[in-house]
Amino acid sequence: MDISIIKLGGSAITDKSEKFSLKEEILDQIATELASVKESFVLVHGGGSFGHPVAEEYDISSGYSEEDQLMGFSKTHQAMEELNSKIVEALIKAGKPAVPVQTSACILVEDDEIVSMEIQNIRKLLDLGVVPVLYGDCVLDSEKGMTILSGDQLTAFLARKLEASEVILGADVNGVYTENPKESEDAKLISEITPETWEGISLSVDFSSQTDVTGGMKNKIEVFLELAKEEGIESKIVNATKPGILKQAIGSDIEVDTKIMEG
Amino acid sequence: MDISIIKLGGSAITDKSEKFSLKEEILDQIATELASVKESFVLVHGGGSFGHPVAEEYDISSGYSEEDQLMGFSKTHQAMEELNSKIVEALIKAGKPAVPVQTSACILVEDDEIVSMEIQNIRKLLDLGVVPVLYGDCVLDSEKGMTILSGDQLTAFLARKLEASEVILGADVNGVYTENPKESEDAKLISEITPETWEGISLSVDFSSQTDVTGGMKNKIEVFLELAKEEGIESKIVNATKPGILKQAIGSDIEVDTKIMEG
Repeated sequence: MDISIIKLGGSAITDKSEKFSLKEEILDQIATELASVKESFVLVHGGGSFGHPVAEEYDISSGYSEEDQLMGFSKTHQAMEELNSKIVEALIKAGKPAVPVQTSACILVEDDEIVSMEIQNIRKLLDLGVVPVLYGDCVLDSEKGMTILSGDQLTAFLARKLEASEVILGADVNGVYTENPKESEDAKLISEITPETWEGISLSVDFSSQTDVTGGMKNKIEVFLELAKEEGIESKIVNATKPGILKQAIGSDIEVDTKIMEG
Repeated sequence: MDISIIKLGGSAITDKSEKFSLKEEILDQIATELASVKESFVLVHGGGSFGHPVAEEYDISSGYSEEDQLMGFSKTHQAMEELNSKIVEALIKAGKPAVPVQTSACILVEDDEIVSMEIQNIRKLLDLGVVPVLYGDCVLDSEKGMTILSGDQLTAFLARKLEASEVILGADVNGVYTENPKESEDAKLISEITPETWEGISLSVDFSSQTDVTGGMKNKIEVFLELAKEEGIESKIVNATKPGILKQAIGSDIEVDTKIMEG
């Protein structure tokens, strides 16, 4: 069975400028597209304006150091689950059976790295034809006490474990640009990134304007470049906010994107 | 570390006569009581008017036989998560850090029995001082495709795995009665149930008026009688809807309840 791992970036489905604000129309549009996809896929989403501000407030990613963070951990998870339930609800409303899989319930993490994960339930959901919906989450860490596991880390891990045929990164931009396309008209799309071209790209491109609590675009590319290098699994960055693009990208080639590939 | 497993019955916190209706005041009162408990405890809750009607509608507990049930599985979990999020929210509001642990994400089930469960995260939450909140849920079953795992089964399983010092079953009645106390004034409380006395009790008591999708009071007693017999872990049935009772029962003896014990 060919499995795609689709990651929905927090910025594609939430408005990062305002806490707990959802881009409802875009979410409904994405859910409708995904409901018509025949291929098997796992959906992973980021935290956007839900999880990130709360995780930052309590400094969860630095590890456990004070009691206040216990409430912060609770509230960060609560925020993530709220976003997750809206995504699952949108899929169900669009006619696609979907079930959340709580990352922090089935994963063991040590020093920010995933040590193990119970994935049998994810396989069974895929076999039945139900979409498993996972998310970046605050997790317990056997070294640090607690930390944040990003949706990107989780996506790459699942791609390996499930031997996915591809990873699709749904963003709010068409791909990786030479400059921030929201700020500069001269920004040019970089259509391919390989281990060979990455050094040059990483030196010439200014990624500083695109960051979040889990590392931003540069970190994202490195996570998926490693996946391409080690497992030969290609990742595509596509603009999930443009109607039809996400759906087209699944299991096929489209032009308006950046591919992160083996070379 | 002494650990109590507290099971909140669906009928204690929801109004079973109306779909998706929560007893908000009682929940807030219970959350306030639990927030002041110093002992370590895991909270498990049932489905009440949230999970049960949806699970029944799609006949989830009979196993997978038709495609419609995939949406039923999604919706049953969605209903359980909605109830769970309200309970977690009530605890957080009362000042107690609490995090859900999605049963169906970390458990493997075969023919209605739990085969394995990732409980390291539950242990870590307890070590930190965060309340893990689990629940009866629709789960994937490697024999039947899907089924319902009751909050009672989960409670007994956790009690074994975590070597709990006691189980507290929070109901909307004071304990087990000779007749349904809501229907008859002659109903008498049975203060102790042991493997020796159970046969006589089970023959003389009419349990038929108290049933739900996961088996009702008779089945509940048998699950916890086995736990008492095999592990020596005692269960107390207490009226969680009466102010103060649940809190008093944790780690101590109170009179107005039924004990299910080794004998």
